[in-house]
Amino acid sequence: MPLIVQKFGGTSVGDLDRIANVARRVAARKDQGNDVVVVVSAMSGETDRLISLATKITPLPSERELDVLISTGEQVTIALLAITLESMGYKAKSYCGWQLPLVTDSAFGSARVTEIGQDLVMKDLAEGRIVIVAGFQGMDESRNVTTLGRGGSDTSAVAVAAALKADLCEIHTDVDGVYTTDPNITSKARKLHKIAYEEILEMASQGAKVLHTRSVELAMRYRVPLIVLSSFNDNSGTLVTEESSDMEKESVRAVTCNMKEAKITLSGVEDKPGVASKIFSSLADANVVVDMIIQNSSADGKTDITFTIPEADLAKTLDICRGIRETLEARDLSGSADIAKVSIIGLGMRSHSGVAAKMFATLANEGINIEMISTSEIKISCVVRKKYAELAVRALHDAFELDRTS
Amino acid sequence: MPLIVQKFGGTSVGDLDRIANVARRVAARKDQGNDVVVVVSAMSGETDRLISLATKITPLPSERELDVLISTGEQVTIALLAITLESMGYKAKSYCGWQLPLVTDSAFGSARVTEIGQDLVMKDLAEGRIVIVAGFQGMDESRNVTTLGRGGSDTSAVAVAAALKADLCEIHTDVDGVYTTDPNITSKARKLHKIAYEEILEMASQGAKVLHTRSVELAMRYRVPLIVLSSFNDNSGTLVTEESSDMEKESVRAVTCNMKEAKITLSGVEDKPGVASKIFSSLADANVVVDMIIQNSSADGKTDITFTIPEADLAKTLDICRGIRETLEARDLSGSADIAKVSIIGLGMRSHSGVAAKMFATLANEGINIEMISTSEIKISCVVRKKYAELAVRALHDAFELDRTS
Repeated sequence: MPLIVQKFGGTSVGDLDRIANVARRVAARKDQGNDVVVVVSAMSGETDRLISLATKITPLPSERELDVLISTGEQVTIALLAITLESMGYKAKSYCGWQLPLVTDSAFGSARVTEIGQDLVMKDLAEGRIVIVAGFQGMDESRNVTTLGRGGSDTSAVAVAAALKADLCEIHTDVDGVYTTDPNITSKARKLHKIAYEEILEMASQGAKVLHTRSVELAMRYRVPLIVLSSFNDNSGTLVTEESSDMEKESVRAVTCNMKEAKITLSGVEDKPGVASKIFSSLADANVVVDMIIQNSSADGKTDITFTIPEADLAKTLDICRGIRETLEARDLSGSADIAKVSIIGLGMRSHSGVAAKMFATLANEGINIEMISTSEIKISCVVRKKYAELAVRALHDAFELDRTS
Repeated sequence: MPLIVQKFGGTSVGDLDRIANVARRVAARKDQGNDVVVVVSAMSGETDRLISLATKITPLPSERELDVLISTGEQVTIALLAITLESMGYKAKSYCGWQLPLVTDSAFGSARVTEIGQDLVMKDLAEGRIVIVAGFQGMDESRNVTTLGRGGSDTSAVAVAAALKADLCEIHTDVDGVYTTDPNITSKARKLHKIAYEEILEMASQGAKVLHTRSVELAMRYRVPLIVLSSFNDNSGTLVTEESSDMEKESVRAVTCNMKEAKITLSGVEDKPGVASKIFSSLADANVVVDMIIQNSSADGKTDITFTIPEADLAKTLDICRGIRETLEARDLSGSADIAKVSIIGLGMRSHSGVAAKMFATLANEGINIEMISTSEIKISCVVRKKYAELAVRALHDAFELDRTS
């Protein structure tokens, strides 16, 4: 019997009516003759409500206790979904993370899954039960409650699917698939029928809010086929799977846009070994995640270093860099949040030449200046001024003909 | 170092301000040089809110899943209290039932404690931590979440105190102790400084809402000294302990009143073996708990049987008795909720004669007719019409001079 893991996010289980809707979708899969394991998030808003209770007490609550607190959110949902399915005449059983157990390391608030117990679930499935698992939560080796971080229910679902060697992991969300770009930016955005793990991973890293990055990494490592679906309609979703020959025909598969970054420039820095290390180790110590880094070669023994960081860390990073500037006797320091990073992504880039040239020409034709460029094997990112971001996305979407069905 | 278990009910942890108040009371005990374990209930109203979510789905939700659902209430409280204590500079650590573990049988919704793990708690206490335990909940041998039934947090507290061999178990509630009778009925009601396990057990059975019956049974079995206190003031509470010589001086210690019963009379029943068995086994099968039973001896080979049941079961019980009446060819069947059971309780009754006579005379003097009488070694109960209940309580409280300090 095929085994399907279905994951439903907070919006999909936001109230009792929506939980009933989820129950019908779960029952439909069961009725089709599948074994079904369901992974659910907390009802939308619940995690935030619980966190706000804790932060009213103290701005920095204990991470261990915060996980005890917020893990109640999913526990409520699994019970309500099990009760709903049983009231519909199905046999169902819920599991908290510790009951499976879903074992993690002890990094409260961002724990990583290390092992998943399968015995109870396999027994329940063999007895015809629908198994419901609380997403987002686990237990460490010392029986402490842990949580996997925001979006962690995706990770729970993929990890459970990998452990149970499921045939498919369905990620039900409030959009009905993965699009070539944000439909809010251009109505020409087209839903992709199929996308490779590597591509969706790059999209998530570049700001597309589809799947939690770690869940895709996990799916890729264990080759778990994912499908992204809407829980509110019956549209076919997007299959996320291994690279296949039909994907390679297109050089570019998607355009993403990240408005939440800022850039910092240290100019007139002496061009000698240890300078970059000095800067970026200080930022790492302060938990600032640096994205793009560009250093120009210099003629006069001086160089300029520019890098991007999350917009929220701009003030903190400028503070740190002021100190560094003095130490390194750099000529100038500047920072700006008036940037956007526009990226084109596609596995096909590896075998198509001229993709970068076409991207730069497209932006130039629109009169958009490129401030920074960064490339990987399957992605090219350009930093432009924020006001040009949407224009850039639309122009690139047209230039690479992403509205055309492949 | 003395070990104190403190239990705080739902009203005491009803919001963040009240949780802060509880934290100060816990901290005070810790500062006095005690090891402290705290047992807390769900925030008031939370358990009802969760149950109503489930019963909106179906009138009879799965008991296993209901326990998963409602056990989240205490889990929220333990985390918030731990966060509060840590923000005050104390080391604290919370435990759900399954984490200790507090092991129970598998009677979902009314589970009984079978074993409590002590290793984690003893280690935490040795390291100077305040330990916070979720009341009301446990785990069965198959890692299912269980709950102990309404008022179960008292039972959790006593069970934990017994397992850890605590020196004292403080039950903090919204009243500041055990009174000679309900202060809402007479302003002469006096707080008792000390009461015996057997007396408070009898009071709880007779309708006084002080402590959960099962928690007193447990405290009595393991000789855990209890003290009932208010969490809202610093009044000295009532110590519940083993019988001591000073208690025996008074014949009667308290007057209770239960307005929530009803009585049923089957009259003209043939007086032969098996009749009572026929009636009460049918009621037991229907889960009707019978309290008092009175059968008059008969002259004509016929007898009348009268018994009391919870008022809520009156209609159901009458239905059952209609069938029994036909089978037994009884002359008449009647039922009435217009009754109240007034009881006097005291260990001293065992050695004082004339207590019953004084009770009956007191009621007669007020013109109150006694409809049923039942006695135990340390209790006499009289059923009277509901309208006389408060008058009876006040008259008995005066007659036995319960307002006088012993």
